[in-house]
Amino acid sequence: MSVEERASAGRGRGRPSADSGFDARAAILSAARRHFADAGFAHSTLRAIARDAGVDASLINHHFGDKRSLLVATLDLPVDPSQRLAEALAGPDHELGVRVVRTFVTTWDEHPEVFATVARTALSGDARTSPVLDVIRDVVVSRLRERLGVPEASLGPALAASQLLGLGLLRYVVRLEPLASAPLEEVVALHGPTVQRSLTSP
Amino acid sequence: MSVEERASAGRGRGRPSADSGFDARAAILSAARRHFADAGFAHSTLRAIARDAGVDASLINHHFGDKRSLLVATLDLPVDPSQRLAEALAGPDHELGVRVVRTFVTTWDEHPEVFATVARTALSGDARTSPVLDVIRDVVVSRLRERLGVPEASLGPALAASQLLGLGLLRYVVRLEPLASAPLEEVVALHGPTVQRSLTSP
Repeated sequence: MSVEERASAGRGRGRPSADSGFDARAAILSAARRHFADAGFAHSTLRAIARDAGVDASLINHHFGDKRSLLVATLDLPVDPSQRLAEALAGPDHELGVRVVRTFVTTWDEHPEVFATVARTALSGDARTSPVLDVIRDVVVSRLRERLGVPEASLGPALAASQLLGLGLLRYVVRLEPLASAPLEEVVALHGPTVQRSLTSP
Repeated sequence: MSVEERASAGRGRGRPSADSGFDARAAILSAARRHFADAGFAHSTLRAIARDAGVDASLINHHFGDKRSLLVATLDLPVDPSQRLAEALAGPDHELGVRVVRTFVTTWDEHPEVFATVARTALSGDARTSPVLDVIRDVVVSRLRERLGVPEASLGPALAASQLLGLGLLRYVVRLEPLASAPLEEVVALHGPTVQRSLTSP
């Protein structure tokens, strides 16, 4: 289910929006954007976001799930990279890189303009405070690290993220040939084991 | 010798600037920027650039060397990535990835702000017509391809370029830890063989 589908499903069956004209989901998103921008992802708490939005903290869980999913939801993407990544991480270790690259390319081949817009917006402002870069750090890199059970100082997950970012930029933003038009399976076959190497090398 | 050092050396001993107040070097750069922007790197000729600048074509060679070096000079960088890459490409095949990554990190660790400015400028405008992306395509990727003797359709050189771009963005623009502060040799040890894999896999 996409972020938008989940959102409208949430709106449809949620008790709070049936009770009043108050849009709890919109209030949470707006408070979350402020908190993530002002305090950063790590220092924002669901409790403080809920208080700011004037809702019970359980409503955040109801509408969005955990804090990472809330962060992704603030970006208004047509897909939830956090959920897709979680799916790619399930499965045997030796094919982790292949699954991650296949998921990345499958996801963004469907929405190349979204990737381009988000990447360019993130990199044209103050890149170090962009919520997109919170997603790289606090969703992609930290999920990879947890999955691999490696310490924070480990370079592998960050290098794997850099490989996905570089691939996305050349395929969707710069559209460098032959990378832009290469078939999915060709990219996966060549880049998958390379990303695997970053993830599982000692 | 840096681009600027070569430029001032060129200005000092060049016959043309001694003959008149006309700055041939500046006229060539200005004409080159117009041609690369309007026609793209591949369709710009040194002959047409020289004609537009009102100089003899041999003067371009005198001041800048070949067309790739002229392109790099139009970017006004403190280093010449084309020359550094050529140095990294000399040497045995099996350490190509390690040499390329070491050269990349050594070069930009000295000038992280320049990398950040150039990358962000390139990606915030129309990425597909930016001269920086001509450099990726017509200097980095095409030099790698020539060195490896692989056809244009080969994905390896483009994937290697994407790995360098992704690394540079996370290390110098986003400054994602632990990648931003990792010692040069640690990055080279982990990323070098990964880039090598993109370059030399069948």
